[in-house]
Order: sequence, then structure tokens, then C-alpha cells
Amino acid sequence: MKLLYEGKAKKVWEIDAEKVLIEFKDDVTAFDGLKKDQYRGKGLLNKKISDYFFKILEKNAIKTHYIRSVDDRNFEAFRTTVMPLETVVRNYAAGSFCKRYGIEKGKKLSKPLVEFMIKSDELHDPLICEDTILLLDLATKEELEYMKRTALKVNEILSSELEKAKLILVDFKLEFGKNSNGEILLIDEITPDTCRFWDSETFESLDKDVYREDKADLLSTYEEVARRLEL
Amino acid sequence: MKLLYEGKAKKVWEIDAEKVLIEFKDDVTAFDGLKKDQYRGKGLLNKKISDYFFKILEKNAIKTHYIRSVDDRNFEAFRTTVMPLETVVRNYAAGSFCKRYGIEKGKKLSKPLVEFMIKSDELHDPLICEDTILLLDLATKEELEYMKRTALKVNEILSSELEKAKLILVDFKLEFGKNSNGEILLIDEITPDTCRFWDSETFESLDKDVYREDKADLLSTYEEVARRLEL
Repeated sequence: MKLLYEGKAKKVWEIDAEKVLIEFKDDVTAFDGLKKDQYRGKGLLNKKISDYFFKILEKNAIKTHYIRSVDDRNFEAFRTTVMPLETVVRNYAAGSFCKRYGIEKGKKLSKPLVEFMIKSDELHDPLICEDTILLLDLATKEELEYMKRTALKVNEILSSELEKAKLILVDFKLEFGKNSNGEILLIDEITPDTCRFWDSETFESLDKDVYREDKADLLSTYEEVARRLEL
Repeated sequence: MKLLYEGKAKKVWEIDAEKVLIEFKDDVTAFDGLKKDQYRGKGLLNKKISDYFFKILEKNAIKTHYIRSVDDRNFEAFRTTVMPLETVVRNYAAGSFCKRYGIEKGKKLSKPLVEFMIKSDELHDPLICEDTILLLDLATKEELEYMKRTALKVNEILSSELEKAKLILVDFKLEFGKNSNGEILLIDEITPDTCRFWDSETFESLDKDVYREDKADLLSTYEEVARRLEL
């Protein structure tokens, strides 16, 4: 198979004109790639967690790129053209939101907030408002509204699912892609790399923040997430 | 008179419960106050240019804080509570917009863009999108729409006025305040400190960028703006 793309945590292999194979690597990076490491087994855990979330979303009528699990490290997915935006949903103030606006970490937002960022390490994924997205032709009004609506639905579905596992969905990043029919699918991964999960009692992080902030072992943290989700 | 507020380029003195005196200083700062200088006569020039623009806006039914000129350095204005947002209108890509999105300076935007920033030197005036403004209670939906609509009207009025003076209105920053009746007024100043003006033929800067980038003498640049506006 031809390698179509290699990102920081995944490889995308060509199956045919309609399908790709998504391979989860053991690499982990933070701060736009300035901090880099490998954790043997991280790829397997994130593949398993992504499988789980994509299946739940599909069951709840969210259109995703997920087709089927192939093995421990790979799943089959629909091939798409990646939209140049990251879609972030926030339920609590954390990470860049706190830093940007000087807001205390852990403050519950009065309702879920959707933000968009341009996908660009070089520009440090800058925040972009809806008028600017339209002006710069990064999405159409309909696409933007679809992404926003879908992101909020995903938030509802995952939040209530995670609640059962005594986890708070603090915030998460989604990516969208367009298939050959022009349909927008939720793509990428849904893992502790792309979501913030906090223990619902202690508020302790069970996600990549343990690596960013050197707070705990990444592997055992991700294992704990998988354990709570009964995977 | 009691000093109510001293900013980087102006002082605000209390006249009474409804009115203030706005005094233009000779100070100029850039990069959140990191670069600082004084140019004797700058205050007078900016006062004169602000007078001129506020009078034009008032004539065009824009509600501003401007009441009347008092002397060379001071005008009388309605007292307001300053809204915590800066409203930026962009016609061409320049300044932070280019840096943020990696866009070439001078690109004409397909239509005017309104952006909001939180007024905060400490946070470096971060960009904030409309949903976040509402979520953080920095303005109501009605206030936000009023500011946006007014900013676009101001853009039309000033752009066509400046065209006669062979100046392009590239972008500008507005501030709004609320008076004791809850009415929103356009406040602050409208000067080469708060606007980007380019010569309509050479595209050379006739604004604070000459100071930011050490390209030309600030005072003779601002004098040239006043000269072109026949002040």
C-alpha cells in the first residue's frame, strides 16, 4: 500500500480510491512537535479507544470515516480530503482557552462552546472566527454550520457516554473531511490525545496533559481510560 | 478636574456626571507598550484628526461620544463605561491579521471583515469570536450586532472620505462605550494611531506603522495626513 500521509500520531495508507487504512503510531508529541517521545503500546490503546468512540457515534447517526477494525493498530476508513480547520468543543475552561483569555482552569462554561482553528503547526493553529473562515474560503456557510452542529451532537453523545465511566469530557478537537460525493465526514481519531478527560470526582487529568505537564505516566493513564470504558 | 483615566495616548478628565474632557498626549507606544516615545505636537495632530472624523461620523448619523472641541489638545465628550472589546475592521490584510494567518500584506479582502479583540495588554488583545463574547458575557447579542453594524457603516463613511484624500483605509480599531442611558456610543479616537492609511498610489504607510517599523518620521507622516484632509 502507498503511504498517503504521515502525521504526528498516525499514518494513512491507500487501500483504493475510496478507502484508506489508518495506522496508529506509538509516537506522542506536544507543543507543536517541540516535545516528542514514543510509548510502546500507545498506538494500540488509541486505536482501541477510537474504535469504541467511532462505533458509538455511528450508532448515533453521526457520519464518520470509520468502516471497520482491521487489527490492533489499524482501522479501515473512507478516504476524504481533509478540511483545513480543527473544530474544538469546550465544556470547561482548560488549555489554550485559559491562556488566551486569562480564565481560571476548571471553570465550567455556561454552555458548550465551539471554536475553529486553522490546522497549521507553523502558525500554531490560530483561532479563526466564522466570518473569517467564510472570507478566506476555508469552508462554506453550510459546511461551517454542519461542522458546528455535528461537533455539538458529538459532545452530547460522548459526554453522556463518558459520564458512565466517571469521566468529564472537558474539551476535544475534531477534524472533518469531504468524501468524493462532497459529503462531510468526521475523520481523524478520538482519543486522550485529542480530548481532555478529567476524573469526575478528583478532576485529575486522564489524557495527554499528563505528558504535556509531566504529571503522570502516559501509558498507564491511557490504560486507565481504556479500563474505565471497559475495552 | 479629576483625572478619571490615563491611557497610552490620552487622559480623560471628569467634567461632570455626564461629560468628560479628552486630552491628547504627545506619547506614542507600540508592541503593548514595549516601544515608547514622545513627539512634541503629536497630540495636537491627533486631536485635530479625531475632531474631523467624529464630526463627519456625527453628520452621518453615527452616535459618538464627541461633543465639541475645547482647544488644541482637548475635546469634550459624553462620559461612558468602556466596553471591554476592541472592534477592528479590515479592508486589506495587514498587521496582526497577516501574522496570525500567514497571509501576504496588502491582499485586498473580498469584503470588509469585522474582528473583536479583548482589550488587554497583559493578554496581548486576544482575538475573540462572537459565540465566546456572548458566553463570557462581554456583550449582549444586540450590543454585538450594533457594534458590528456600526463598525461597517463607519468603514463606508471613512473609506469614501479618505479616498478623496488619496488614502486607502486599510484597517482600523474602534472602541465603544455605554452612556448612563445604556446607549452605545463610538468613543476613543480615530487617528493614524488607530487606523492604517496607505497612499492610494504607492501603498506607502501614513500611520503608526512608520513608527512601529522605523520607516519614516512619525510627526511629518501625521502632518501629511492632516494636510491631505485639509485640516
